[in-house]
Amino acid sequence: MPAPSLNRPTPTQLDELRSLLGDPRKVGTGQAVREHHSHDFSYHRPRLPDAVVYPESTDDVRAVLEWAARHRVPVVPFGVGSSLEGHTVPLAGGISLDMTRMDAILEVRPEDFLVRVQPGVTRSRLNQRLAREGLFFPVDPGADATIGGMIANNASGTNAVRYGAMKHQVLGLEVVLAGGRVIRTGSRAVKSSAGYNLTALFVGSEGTLGVVTEAILRIYPLPEFVLAARASFPSVEAAARVAVALIRAGVPVARVELVDAPTIRAVNAYKGTRYPERPTLFLEFAGTEAAVREEVALAQELAALEEGVDFAFETEPAARERLWEARHQAALAIAAAAPGRRMMATDVCVPLSQLPAAVAFARRVAEEHGLEAAILGHVGDGNYHVTFMVDPDDPAEVRRAEAVNERIVRDALARGGTCTGEHGVGMGKVKYLEAEHGAEAVELMRALKAVLDPLGILNPGKVVGTPVPS
Amino acid sequence: MPAPSLNRPTPTQLDELRSLLGDPRKVGTGQAVREHHSHDFSYHRPRLPDAVVYPESTDDVRAVLEWAARHRVPVVPFGVGSSLEGHTVPLAGGISLDMTRMDAILEVRPEDFLVRVQPGVTRSRLNQRLAREGLFFPVDPGADATIGGMIANNASGTNAVRYGAMKHQVLGLEVVLAGGRVIRTGSRAVKSSAGYNLTALFVGSEGTLGVVTEAILRIYPLPEFVLAARASFPSVEAAARVAVALIRAGVPVARVELVDAPTIRAVNAYKGTRYPERPTLFLEFAGTEAAVREEVALAQELAALEEGVDFAFETEPAARERLWEARHQAALAIAAAAPGRRMMATDVCVPLSQLPAAVAFARRVAEEHGLEAAILGHVGDGNYHVTFMVDPDDPAEVRRAEAVNERIVRDALARGGTCTGEHGVGMGKVKYLEAEHGAEAVELMRALKAVLDPLGILNPGKVVGTPVPS
Repeated sequence: MPAPSLNRPTPTQLDELRSLLGDPRKVGTGQAVREHHSHDFSYHRPRLPDAVVYPESTDDVRAVLEWAARHRVPVVPFGVGSSLEGHTVPLAGGISLDMTRMDAILEVRPEDFLVRVQPGVTRSRLNQRLAREGLFFPVDPGADATIGGMIANNASGTNAVRYGAMKHQVLGLEVVLAGGRVIRTGSRAVKSSAGYNLTALFVGSEGTLGVVTEAILRIYPLPEFVLAARASFPSVEAAARVAVALIRAGVPVARVELVDAPTIRAVNAYKGTRYPERPTLFLEFAGTEAAVREEVALAQELAALEEGVDFAFETEPAARERLWEARHQAALAIAAAAPGRRMMATDVCVPLSQLPAAVAFARRVAEEHGLEAAILGHVGDGNYHVTFMVDPDDPAEVRRAEAVNERIVRDALARGGTCTGEHGVGMGKVKYLEAEHGAEAVELMRALKAVLDPLGILNPGKVVGTPVPS
Repeated sequence: MPAPSLNRPTPTQLDELRSLLGDPRKVGTGQAVREHHSHDFSYHRPRLPDAVVYPESTDDVRAVLEWAARHRVPVVPFGVGSSLEGHTVPLAGGISLDMTRMDAILEVRPEDFLVRVQPGVTRSRLNQRLAREGLFFPVDPGADATIGGMIANNASGTNAVRYGAMKHQVLGLEVVLAGGRVIRTGSRAVKSSAGYNLTALFVGSEGTLGVVTEAILRIYPLPEFVLAARASFPSVEAAARVAVALIRAGVPVARVELVDAPTIRAVNAYKGTRYPERPTLFLEFAGTEAAVREEVALAQELAALEEGVDFAFETEPAARERLWEARHQAALAIAAAAPGRRMMATDVCVPLSQLPAAVAFARRVAEEHGLEAAILGHVGDGNYHVTFMVDPDDPAEVRRAEAVNERIVRDALARGGTCTGEHGVGMGKVKYLEAEHGAEAVELMRALKAVLDPLGILNPGKVVGTPVPS
């Protein structure tokens, strides 16, 4: 199918849009705002949108999408721009649709364990509000992303081992479709078998199937007691075995993160610390105090069986923070050593038992290519990241980094895994989609895209990689 | 869009199918097998398929679907026929595709907490196999359904409050599409953000979008210690408040079921038992012994605050079974009083805080219509069932029962809930889909159906209710 032709908006069309939105301040064309909306947090090459639009209501979004369909102008939703695969880069120009003014927390229902929000609210602000009720929203990607962005790429983070990813939290959505139709999916019920799961189709669709304007999310009680622990091991395999043994024992681990030895070494160099330069497991337990004490005792026992040393734990917030410092500083340690460069983070996810071998493989590949890299593993769900810095203006360096990424992806696919556990496809993983899912499945994805966005206006070039006119 | 015209298969076409499948015993046309495949477990009117086909491999399913597309013959997948909304009734005749010969457990990977199975395996047989590894598959609808059937209607059950529904367990699928193309979705990774969530589109699609031929499922460690408890309360509200307080306290309740007073009365009449005829909460806790003991102590405390009496608990399997007997016997007590009738079970799900009022409303409506009904609530997720018996050959009785069902559904939708929490749409809930989701969302569902099944061959008349020629 040939790509439908897309247009850059003319000044007259932008004036029309300003008038449709009833307030010229909802449309920005200054260089600074366009530059701010030209990239994300990653190494992917920026591209300027022609204008940045700031909707303040679902009606505004509808007006933009009607206008965009009429003029065949691309629209790329934007939250805080913290994505890592170029999701927010407007590859074909057009409109960057900045959702941050739609940041209301519309409804908090503690007794129903749910909340209804607009997409522009950040996770930290949502959690500030929920803390008053003794509740929280668990999905915790590295950045303080917007809920809309987190829905768009099915984000997860360190809490996923216990609470699941974004797709497990979204009960319902309001979505404006290409052309301006508004639909609602799901409900306020926790469970439903009422028809095709449209909610799940939009979660992870990265702004290519519609623009989310409202979401109903599950929320959870804040645990009464939290304990952080850390231990280091003779090998990545030994550390991973402890994590699996804990899960196998039915322990509802709250967090379990692996940092490999060279990454600890980089942190020591960066912070002047003296952590043992061995594979290190960072754990968190949460629940009632008695249950947590029992869990940590079991963890200590299991760690000892695997020759874990320096087992330490803390319960006070500040002390817990210090105990986990090496985990939190890992990516920063790499970034600090490369000022002016931008981040590339691999994001494969493999079956649990494959994680140690996959991490060892990734470390070897990074070393072969002379890359200073942090390796962090969400060892409870098989997702791990190799993070390194590249100069986006050095094509040779970008190619070398992409070669490393590619070898790591191919390795994960061969192990029965996925090219992206939580960062999404964006522009960076389009090329692996067929290798992962097969041509027939990707063809079906393209057919779904064609139903929902027949003009190819929504975030062109992302996910299923509709060809983009340059 | 007019319904594509569907055909009944001719004897010659059935001979062609026998020859394609290489074994005449894979195609049955005897009256007895056709009758067995004409209905499900519910009151919905049966209809005979023209033939029953027993595929033994994905290739067989592909051959059937290619043949069916060529001749425009409907195909309706069939497991054990335990659905409750007429899912397996072949409304337009054609082929009942009996999947029970494809019942292999293809792969058990304890260290990855996943299993790969064919759709015809039943949940009890899967769990027998997993018990050897100290693992289990948690989704537990009332019947001993096949995994394929459970995927088809996104089944759940009493374990859902802790482990989620079917959609939370399915990591990947092999699906034969209408026309015979085979796709694979998902992977063996626990998390993925790699493209549109095709897996979630097929889970709950009730055989209307494709035929599942393989599934990768999450499995879990068997808990080390299990405790069942029971207490009765002055009101449904008081019982529900205890359930919510437990969840609010962060207790990972394994099961929490509510049985209302008239239902207990029916059980006493049926079994000659003397349970207090008051709203009763049935609880289960599972984990390490120390954690469970702590949880049950909290439950007892919370129950006392709500004037709960007769708090009892048991830890041995047989004693646990006895303690829960009134819960297990509730539907049977109603069924035993109405020999020869068939079951209708409502299946709405409402926000948690709405459950007591919804249950009280349902009881009132049932009484107004003179229906002897059991009311069972999955009070941890807001899903409840009103179960009563109807004579499918008495149109007035069916109409009266459907009127009760309709009032219960309208009430649930008004409370922000769904018309079906776990039984699915089948033919029984088609008429509520627009009221729940809105015309625009249902139109999108129909558009997705048209992409995946352009000839309307797959389970016609179900879910989105493609009009069926009579």
